[in-house]
Amino acid sequence: MAPTKAPDSSRRSDRSRRAIHDAALALVTEVGYRRTTIEGIAARAGVGKQTIYRWWPSKAAVLMDAFLDLAGRSAEEAGSGEDAPSDEAAQGIPDTGDLVADLKLVLRATVDELNDPVLEAPTRALTAEGIVDAKLGAEFVHKLLDPQLALYVTRLRAAQEAGDVRADVDPRIALELLIGPLMHRWLLRTLPLTHAYADEIVDYAVGGLAPRP
Amino acid sequence: MAPTKAPDSSRRSDRSRRAIHDAALALVTEVGYRRTTIEGIAARAGVGKQTIYRWWPSKAAVLMDAFLDLAGRSAEEAGSGEDAPSDEAAQGIPDTGDLVADLKLVLRATVDELNDPVLEAPTRALTAEGIVDAKLGAEFVHKLLDPQLALYVTRLRAAQEAGDVRADVDPRIALELLIGPLMHRWLLRTLPLTHAYADEIVDYAVGGLAPRP
Repeated sequence: MAPTKAPDSSRRSDRSRRAIHDAALALVTEVGYRRTTIEGIAARAGVGKQTIYRWWPSKAAVLMDAFLDLAGRSAEEAGSGEDAPSDEAAQGIPDTGDLVADLKLVLRATVDELNDPVLEAPTRALTAEGIVDAKLGAEFVHKLLDPQLALYVTRLRAAQEAGDVRADVDPRIALELLIGPLMHRWLLRTLPLTHAYADEIVDYAVGGLAPRP
Repeated sequence: MAPTKAPDSSRRSDRSRRAIHDAALALVTEVGYRRTTIEGIAARAGVGKQTIYRWWPSKAAVLMDAFLDLAGRSAEEAGSGEDAPSDEAAQGIPDTGDLVADLKLVLRATVDELNDPVLEAPTRALTAEGIVDAKLGAEFVHKLLDPQLALYVTRLRAAQEAGDVRADVDPRIALELLIGPLMHRWLLRTLPLTHAYADEIVDYAVGGLAPRP
C-alpha cells in the first residue's frame, strides 16, 4: 500500500502547507504581524493548530516560509514570461561581462518585485515588524535578505577580477549603494520607484566603483 | 494684569506641551504607534484630553511635533559639545569647498543620531508605522524627511557649480546614494552603522558623481 499512499499523503501535505502559507500572508496583510496568531492562521487555512505546530516552531517561522514560497512563486511566474529578469535574479546575477547592464537588469527586476501588489503588503508588514522587533528583524535579514546580498558580492567580486571595479572596494559595502536607495525609496515612499530610477542608481554607483584613470 | 499673566500662561503652556510630547514619545516607544491613544497621552502627561485636541488635530500630529521637538533638543545638546556636527546638519550642510569632507561630517552626524538610544525607539516606531500606513508615511516624509533631503540638494547643486559634481547628475537622485545605504543598514540592522561606514559610502558615492576625466 505504501507506494500508492505516499504520493497522496505528500500531495495532501503540500496542499495543507500552501493553505497555511496563504492564510498567514492574508492575515499579516489584513491585521498586521502582531495581531496574526497561529490560531487565526489555522482557522483560516482550515487545519488544526497542531498541524502548524508540527511543522513550524513559531508564527515568525510560518511567515518566513510563507514569504519564501510566495517570492519563489512570483519569480516562477515572472520567469514564464518573455523576459525573465526575476528568475535570473533568483538564480544569481548574470555575468555577461557588462557590469552596468547586468546590474540594471537585476535592479529593474527588484523594482518590479517591490511594486508587485501581491508581494507588497506582506513584505511591508514583515519589514515594519522587523524594524521594531530586533529578533524578528535579524531572522528576516538572515533568511531572506542576506542570501540576496551574497549574489551582489559574487557579481562585484567578478567585476573586480575583470577590472571593472577597483580592487580596494569592499563589495559588501558597495552593494548597499545599489540596494539601499531602492529600499529607502520603496519603504518611505519618497518618490516613484521606476526602471529609470534603477538605471540612474546603477550609473551613478558603478561610476564610483570603477577604476580611477 | 495681562502683562504679568501672559508670560506665566505661556510658561504653563510650554510645560504642558513638553509633558505631552514626552508622554507621546514614551508611549509610542513602549506600546507602538497603533496602541498609543490621545487618551493615553493625556493621562500620562497629566492633562485633559481637550488640551491635546485644542493644539493637535490627531495622534499623528502630536507625534510628529513631539518628534521634531526631540530631534531639535538632541541637536542642541550635540551642538553644546566641543564639535557640533548635528547642529551644523540642522542648519544646512556646510560648504567648505571640500565636498567629501562636508558630506562625511554630515553623514557621521546622521550615524550618531540614528545610534542615539533616546531617538532610536520612537524613530523606529514611527518609521515602521509609516511603512504600512501610506498616509502617515507621507506625512512623515513631508514634514520630517523632505526638509533634510533638501539640504543635500542645495549642497550638491553648489558642488555642481564648483565643478565637483557632473552637470548631468540629478541631485535629488544622487542624495539617495548617501542617505539610502545608511537608512537601509539602520532600519534592517544588517551590519553595524559606524563612522567608517559613512566615510566609505561618501567616498564611493562621490566618486560616481565626479566629472569624468
